Amino acid sequence: MAWDDSAGSADGGVAFDNRPIGVFDSGYGGLTVARELQKRLPEESLVYFGDSARCPYGPRDQAEVDRFVQQICTWLLGRDVKMIVIACNTATAAGLAHAQRAFDVPVVGVVEPGARAAAHTTMNRRVGVIATKGTVESNAYSDAIRHIDAGITVFSTATPRFVEIAEMGLKLADGPIEDYMSEATKVYIRPEFEDIAREYLEPLRRCEIDTLVLGCTHYPLLKALIGGVVGRAVTLVSSAEETARDVDHILRRRRSFAQPGHAPVYSFFTTAADTDEFRRFGGRVLARPMDVVEHVDLPDLIVS
Amino acid sequence: MAWDDSAGSADGGVAFDNRPIGVFDSGYGGLTVARELQKRLPEESLVYFGDSARCPYGPRDQAEVDRFVQQICTWLLGRDVKMIVIACNTATAAGLAHAQRAFDVPVVGVVEPGARAAAHTTMNRRVGVIATKGTVESNAYSDAIRHIDAGITVFSTATPRFVEIAEMGLKLADGPIEDYMSEATKVYIRPEFEDIAREYLEPLRRCEIDTLVLGCTHYPLLKALIGGVVGRAVTLVSSAEETARDVDHILRRRRSFAQPGHAPVYSFFTTAADTDEFRRFGGRVLARPMDVVEHVDLPDLIVS
Repeated sequence: MAWDDSAGSADGGVAFDNRPIGVFDSGYGGLTVARELQKRLPEESLVYFGDSARCPYGPRDQAEVDRFVQQICTWLLGRDVKMIVIACNTATAAGLAHAQRAFDVPVVGVVEPGARAAAHTTMNRRVGVIATKGTVESNAYSDAIRHIDAGITVFSTATPRFVEIAEMGLKLADGPIEDYMSEATKVYIRPEFEDIAREYLEPLRRCEIDTLVLGCTHYPLLKALIGGVVGRAVTLVSSAEETARDVDHILRRRRSFAQPGHAPVYSFFTTAADTDEFRRFGGRVLARPMDVVEHVDLPDLIVS
Repeated sequence: MAWDDSAGSADGGVAFDNRPIGVFDSGYGGLTVARELQKRLPEESLVYFGDSARCPYGPRDQAEVDRFVQQICTWLLGRDVKMIVIACNTATAAGLAHAQRAFDVPVVGVVEPGARAAAHTTMNRRVGVIATKGTVESNAYSDAIRHIDAGITVFSTATPRFVEIAEMGLKLADGPIEDYMSEATKVYIRPEFEDIAREYLEPLRRCEIDTLVLGCTHYPLLKALIGGVVGRAVTLVSSAEETARDVDHILRRRRSFAQPGHAPVYSFFTTAADTDEFRRFGGRVLARPMDVVEHVDLPDLIVS
């Protein structure tokens, strides 16, 4: 009998699995999740896939995004990944359950971990969610938050222009890659961006939320802008750290960690035509240089 | 702006809350959860309530158990608890969502944490659940497991006699309180108990499950018996440890831990007429002596 009351306490032999973890997003945003994975699980190899050629996913309909999710998961499994993280809220809402039914490896999304963090954080049980149109319309966050605490009222709003602003900042920021966040802070706090943020967030503030879920992996880049508008009384929650924690638990429970001392390999792939741009901006999100970014042709992805 | 990307990293002043955590069950079973809370959060005070006069909850209808849950939560809030743990699967399935909507403090159940542990553990995505009739009929576990991983097939079966066997063992076991688990192991591995266990578990084994949720807080007492029948290839999951971890996260995120160095107070209450019996057997589950157990009259509970 294996007894798994406490994580990692299962008896029997120790097993390892040096295969990489697959992580994907419609673009750079999911690198915020990859960064947390690197921090928490430094011995794990990662294969990151950014579908920039078809970015943004937010305004697309669910069935189309679901199709992209299944294509990319199939492609990642061709790279022999041991599990898959859908590091994109829109893609999680549209395709997670389908991918879980379709594939044999664990597939994890960012919605459930973020929802749990928000449910555990709120004191007055009024939670705001900002996300893309697709994520908001799927009700994925309100369902997931209320699944954990049925007493929470969720106020959701689509804030698509935040994706544009985040991308703009990535291109405008300068300085050493490790300092990107503080550089970006200067870039993002501009009167015209603040006006947009105020227009989006003022209604949520009036709902007296005390917790705000950044329901798009791009949004953590804008925390200074968003936090400045909603004020100190509102706690911002991003899914990146929570998702990395779940990945940790899954690998521990399945005894599938990479071997101690394993030298991790990070591989980056994008459907973008300009892999150099992806490498430059992606490194800013990842807070470390990406050595090589390989291009993947969309037709190869679709038939894979 | 408070930034809560990583648990406990929120800025601002540090706050403490020395009020106790309320924990309840239909009897002793929930003390397996109290034990994990003590282990993980040794500075937290606990108020434990065992509704032994109305035990077992398993065969009762959902509406009745829901009513009990609301009564006990009201009573616990009268003891000024900062949060409530429903340390009973049947009560969680019947009354958690209602209690979350009705009360202002966080209310946590044991189903969601146990479901998450099972979903993260299974390799072949075939999970068994054994529980009381009420819990099985509520579909609480299958819903919660499939909410986390839609690709998992859940096989549930009601095993009400395991509650009787667990209680019997508590009464038959002897020896020092700290060794109860090993003593109980001897008590539980009897041919007549093994016959019952085989009858319950053989169908699940034939379903080729690789993970079995002990969906009743009594069942961890029977892990040797159950594990012996299902075999080493099946990992047993109990909610106790996972629930304690969730409580830890909630207190951290809400900055509601007891002050460091706080001397915890444990208070035990039961509706049982014989508080001495509750004290004796409860101590075995808790793996430490209960100094005082106070009696609560049912009418006081109902009007509280």
